[in-house]
Amino acid sequence: MDRRSFIKSAGLAGVGTAALAAPAIAQSAPEIKWRLTSGFPKSLDTIYGGAETISKAVSDITDGKFQIQVFPSGELIPTPQALDAVQNDTVEATHTCSYYYVGKDPTFAIGTAIPFGLNARQQNAWITEGGGQQLLDEFYGQYGVVSFVAGNTGTQMGGWWRKEIKSVADLSGVKFRIAGLGGRVMAKLGAAPQQIPGSDIYPALEKGTIDAAEWVGPYDDEKLGFAQVAKYYYYPGFWEGGPAIHLFVNKAKYEALPDSYKAALKAASALANDVMMAKYDVKNVTAIRSLVGSGVQLRRYPNDVLEAAYKATFELYDELAAENANWKKVYEPWKKYREEAYQWFRVAEYTFDSFGYTMQAKG
Amino acid sequence: MDRRSFIKSAGLAGVGTAALAAPAIAQSAPEIKWRLTSGFPKSLDTIYGGAETISKAVSDITDGKFQIQVFPSGELIPTPQALDAVQNDTVEATHTCSYYYVGKDPTFAIGTAIPFGLNARQQNAWITEGGGQQLLDEFYGQYGVVSFVAGNTGTQMGGWWRKEIKSVADLSGVKFRIAGLGGRVMAKLGAAPQQIPGSDIYPALEKGTIDAAEWVGPYDDEKLGFAQVAKYYYYPGFWEGGPAIHLFVNKAKYEALPDSYKAALKAASALANDVMMAKYDVKNVTAIRSLVGSGVQLRRYPNDVLEAAYKATFELYDELAAENANWKKVYEPWKKYREEAYQWFRVAEYTFDSFGYTMQAKG
Repeated sequence: MDRRSFIKSAGLAGVGTAALAAPAIAQSAPEIKWRLTSGFPKSLDTIYGGAETISKAVSDITDGKFQIQVFPSGELIPTPQALDAVQNDTVEATHTCSYYYVGKDPTFAIGTAIPFGLNARQQNAWITEGGGQQLLDEFYGQYGVVSFVAGNTGTQMGGWWRKEIKSVADLSGVKFRIAGLGGRVMAKLGAAPQQIPGSDIYPALEKGTIDAAEWVGPYDDEKLGFAQVAKYYYYPGFWEGGPAIHLFVNKAKYEALPDSYKAALKAASALANDVMMAKYDVKNVTAIRSLVGSGVQLRRYPNDVLEAAYKATFELYDELAAENANWKKVYEPWKKYREEAYQWFRVAEYTFDSFGYTMQAKG
Repeated sequence: MDRRSFIKSAGLAGVGTAALAAPAIAQSAPEIKWRLTSGFPKSLDTIYGGAETISKAVSDITDGKFQIQVFPSGELIPTPQALDAVQNDTVEATHTCSYYYVGKDPTFAIGTAIPFGLNARQQNAWITEGGGQQLLDEFYGQYGVVSFVAGNTGTQMGGWWRKEIKSVADLSGVKFRIAGLGGRVMAKLGAAPQQIPGSDIYPALEKGTIDAAEWVGPYDDEKLGFAQVAKYYYYPGFWEGGPAIHLFVNKAKYEALPDSYKAALKAASALANDVMMAKYDVKNVTAIRSLVGSGVQLRRYPNDVLEAAYKATFELYDELAAENANWKKVYEPWKKYREEAYQWFRVAEYTFDSFGYTMQAKG
């Protein structure tokens, strides 16, 4: 065989080899491009950043073969329609709070946070190792999606108020922007809860269309400038002790992934979970100092407000359990974990925190 | 060209193609086998399980190409020699507490936990987003390793005592098995700290060779059966508010990994970090109930013990800063984060926990 025919046949053989090898390569590492709509604007880099963390990790892990393109809320799909968009496969995924969908079913709140619920660690524990994942995915499955815990903000602040709240009576008729089931609790206390997207809160508060608004915590709230239009910054956001942010993926699209990509998605979500919490726990530390330094007045909700809200909350949960089978199924095991976890956390964890904080307060 | 010569040349060409293609394939997804020595026995499934979580995730993500075989402490290498073994490349990795190596340098304690330090969330935050990772890796780099946070136990319990501790005076001469820098604080309070591997604690406590011993928390401690030989179970483990468990990897071996495997290792470590904390936060909840149900007496360390320990702790830190440049370099920014983080956590997070736990205690 001369050189020319060798090259020619080598070329042919090369094509043949490639053609034979391709299916196996394609199965194990196909090129996949997904679109993800975030529940948040790009300006809120920490919470929006959760989806970017997932996207980057999945791409890095798969050598760029599995690409998830992240879009801010509203660029493709507004947040309220994101879950439908994933169910309908308009986009493959959304990274958002499940409690934005309480209008469909209040059970959506449990996966993120419900009033006087779990703190961040307890919420993670209940979902990932305490049986929550299975219960939630059974429920989310009715909407054609699967979920991954992929972020947390920690206990949020209780909102910006234009006037001080000295007792429950001061809540009467007050227009308060609040998310999730917190609004239903506030309504039981006489307030008029408002559903307003993040970007519209500032002008509403400035004009006095609303009297108060809660958003997230110091870092995000400082970005939105609320301190300029409401002086009193209340805590704690008792309706959001440890809100989890979820990655929701179209179930059929998820199931069609190669196992290695499924594993990458799971690990990337855990990374986003860690990174978001850590970012908040660093950035809020700086932001609260900056806010207080600029004259913001920190206020703890008075005990009678907290106690009335606590009572109203568990009344609401019992009402929901009586009327909604989905709620009952997810809530009851959640409540059992909450009661037992509180007992344990009160021992070592809380005593450690409490003693350290007390020593600091003493100077 | 007849069929025979085609096949023959195709075969040659095939070899040629493979030889040309191989380097690219090998670079992007080589078969790699590592050995990891855990700092823990297999019987402690939660903390030992951290390495298994990493191993499984990395294997799943890479379709089995990157294998990390996990060995229990002592099977290949005893825990005290594990760091040397990674540095010398006897094994590629260990999953362990950095504070087991305070004998080399007390600075090793900071990456895991130091007395009256950070809780689990704060420790994660400081390391991953607060500048800690860079400081720690600079220090660990002196030992030829890189680190990933890959697990946490939460605030540990304060140990099993054969007699009650009513004041600092009761610590005098007491032989107490304790890990990390906690021993140096206990020594300042008059106790005689003991370094004893986990498996030897039970017989030592039973025979009265030691008077008390701390290990981890309810779930692990129940497995080791300490309740049978010491009745009083103290809290909190003030020397371990949120101990991080690390994956340490030989630096040269890590740097030789393809980027995709580095990304897989990072995400798998985050997964282990989440899963271990969640497992403890579910299993301890059950174990503390079981222990108390079987007659274990829970006791909070008296305030005078905690206050004396707190004072001794910060004296120790100042001594270390004066004599050890590594300590000073890592400790000072850590301490700044601790002070500012405590201020923020006291606002929303602690008030949320505190109110919920108080309402539960009221019934």
